[in-house]
Amino acid sequence: LKAQIVIIGDELLVGRIQDTNTQVIAKWLGAQGFELTQVTITSDRPESLLHCLTKALEGSDLVLTTGGLGPTEDDITKQIIAKLAGTKLEKNEEAIRLAKLHYGRIDKDWNQQTNSYHLIPQGVEPILNPAGLAPGLSLAKDGKLLLSAPGVPRELKAMLEGPFIELLERHFPKRINDHQVMTIRTFGTPEEKIFFEMMPNLWQELSHEGKVSSLPQILGVDIHLSFRGSPQDQMAMTEKWQQRLKGSPLEEHIWSYEFKSIEEVVLEKAREKDLKIALAESCTGGLVANRLTNISGSSSHFKGGVVAYANEVKQGVLKVKEDSLREYGAVSEVVATEMAEGVLNVLQSDVSLSLTGIAGPGGGSEHKPVGTVCIGTASNKLAEAKTYLYRGDRAFLKRRFSEVGLHRLRKIIENS
Amino acid sequence: LKAQIVIIGDELLVGRIQDTNTQVIAKWLGAQGFELTQVTITSDRPESLLHCLTKALEGSDLVLTTGGLGPTEDDITKQIIAKLAGTKLEKNEEAIRLAKLHYGRIDKDWNQQTNSYHLIPQGVEPILNPAGLAPGLSLAKDGKLLLSAPGVPRELKAMLEGPFIELLERHFPKRINDHQVMTIRTFGTPEEKIFFEMMPNLWQELSHEGKVSSLPQILGVDIHLSFRGSPQDQMAMTEKWQQRLKGSPLEEHIWSYEFKSIEEVVLEKAREKDLKIALAESCTGGLVANRLTNISGSSSHFKGGVVAYANEVKQGVLKVKEDSLREYGAVSEVVATEMAEGVLNVLQSDVSLSLTGIAGPGGGSEHKPVGTVCIGTASNKLAEAKTYLYRGDRAFLKRRFSEVGLHRLRKIIENS
Repeated sequence: LKAQIVIIGDELLVGRIQDTNTQVIAKWLGAQGFELTQVTITSDRPESLLHCLTKALEGSDLVLTTGGLGPTEDDITKQIIAKLAGTKLEKNEEAIRLAKLHYGRIDKDWNQQTNSYHLIPQGVEPILNPAGLAPGLSLAKDGKLLLSAPGVPRELKAMLEGPFIELLERHFPKRINDHQVMTIRTFGTPEEKIFFEMMPNLWQELSHEGKVSSLPQILGVDIHLSFRGSPQDQMAMTEKWQQRLKGSPLEEHIWSYEFKSIEEVVLEKAREKDLKIALAESCTGGLVANRLTNISGSSSHFKGGVVAYANEVKQGVLKVKEDSLREYGAVSEVVATEMAEGVLNVLQSDVSLSLTGIAGPGGGSEHKPVGTVCIGTASNKLAEAKTYLYRGDRAFLKRRFSEVGLHRLRKIIENS
Repeated sequence: LKAQIVIIGDELLVGRIQDTNTQVIAKWLGAQGFELTQVTITSDRPESLLHCLTKALEGSDLVLTTGGLGPTEDDITKQIIAKLAGTKLEKNEEAIRLAKLHYGRIDKDWNQQTNSYHLIPQGVEPILNPAGLAPGLSLAKDGKLLLSAPGVPRELKAMLEGPFIELLERHFPKRINDHQVMTIRTFGTPEEKIFFEMMPNLWQELSHEGKVSSLPQILGVDIHLSFRGSPQDQMAMTEKWQQRLKGSPLEEHIWSYEFKSIEEVVLEKAREKDLKIALAESCTGGLVANRLTNISGSSSHFKGGVVAYANEVKQGVLKVKEDSLREYGAVSEVVATEMAEGVLNVLQSDVSLSLTGIAGPGGGSEHKPVGTVCIGTASNKLAEAKTYLYRGDRAFLKRRFSEVGLHRLRKIIENS
């Protein structure tokens, strides 16, 4: 079963907002047994939208649109779907019921003067929006299904989790999801080195099992293998390749056979060993703490952190020595080590990570250019620090520093 | 001048990665005087890609592709562009020069066994990649231009900033950017209320000036007006509407007439009043600190923060009273107030913000459900806290909490 996504919104085409819906819908479609073949972002001009929807329906069993369902004049999805269905907007009793329900949730009366939520194209079904006011739409036509959801990410998610699954059950009851993926996540070695020096036959060997792809990440490379099979086949495949790569030059670079984030892996390992984590962040400014606390359940093994942006905070809270700051500077291995030790003590934890560096664009010098970071780790056995140098803009450097930091944290937890 | 983007990559279609390139290219195209009419994400299957590129070129003056230029077998962009140009891959002297240059930067010799960077379609120009190994491509055909960049965000950015601008200068020397936008950023009132209750004529009035659109954000609504004109016209338009909305019911909800983030506005206001900011974060786990430190120059007025995830950290570092924690619980206005006061003192700052709440999915109770957050603020004049309740998943709640927190911080800085 093939699917396409059509995202409606000038906001994306002028670059004012970052689309996050595509990834959410793409994952959902995969889990529902659909192959997503194309995503189109189009403007809210009627002719472009009608053209896109017509083309998308030609090549697929399911088309999902987001955006353009709100109450303002730039919301034209309903009008275009009416054209597509060859019908007109009309008063719809179910839509009125939903409008009253949606407004009831926010303790308001629905007022048809301020929106036209009661008007729905003939032949189109209005769909409950569990998290907002504008209803979704469903149009079944020639064995195909067109689903429309609002563009607000939270409302879209709520529709995907409930009403849209019911519609798929009704229209595609026999679909199965036999699409499996094995992911080999590696760290610290480039794509070319893996496939042409370390493991020159790896790509070909993997190709016997399914479709291979390789994706350089911010630090490291993900190797993905897609194949058809059951969840049991997936486990057997992972087992087989773990065995196959044991003792290979790639082994020491592999940190996961699942598509988990480094922060999830760090917290899992901390849980296994029952170690409490503390952070002292300067240049990453809370990014590492934020990444760890994005994982639910992180509170059991993450105690907290200090964002020591100013030197007074490094001294006052983390007990970094004034002499060290003066003699070596804030971006130094000595200070990074003292920060890691300091936060370990102040937050009474078992392992700690510290980062002090220059994310730019200002603040660099000849000896310590923008992109320099000193990363410290401490446990009750050992405190130490290393210096790294990367290139990139501020956002990228913060991300990259946090990535190396989390891998350092993984290592000291593994060795604790 | 019209443009389209074609993004190549199965990774996006299975939802494994979040696309961030579209927004970067969209902004760039706008600044270069192009109107972006469509974005297509397609798989790396040869027939789909060839079809997409052909269609995209039909309707535009410029097509920009990303992805599929690397050294592995799933990188097929070069082959498809050769088909499009009706030619074949051949050894290219400029490509060899670039390969040697790119590898020289990482202190390696280029080795044509491990990649085919020397092979380029006839009639296609290889383009310097300032931040990576794979060259970009440029194909001029029938007055149109097709540019291909790698999908790695950092490499793409480097190509947009340098080599691609030069190519635009050469191929479209007469282009001008007369596209202007005015943005009215509002907070704390829904779209419907603005346009149908508060300001029923606003949409129509704005429509006389250009194209209006309205975009609900995580908290608040952005109203955008796009029109043709010079940067002077843009300033005059903003001035006119600031006057027009003065004294209107919308005025108190407007926090910016520019497309700035709330963290930028907070730091600007802190700079104006020369106030130092400190943060005490529990449930947001470093997100607010991370957002502030994403802004370059933030170090001048952001001193730092404490991520007080565990109660021991609230007590030990922030000096929250044990009695308050026991009597009112960690998620309470009393504790939020003490956290704000504590971090103000410990970090010796002028204003502070604290957040303590329940981001879920666990940890909620009948009296304090998931989505509850107590937000405290402190200055040398006053410390206080308020409780808010939102709905959503963990990531959304963290985001929403941080957003309200930053607006609270803006308010206390304005009133300081």
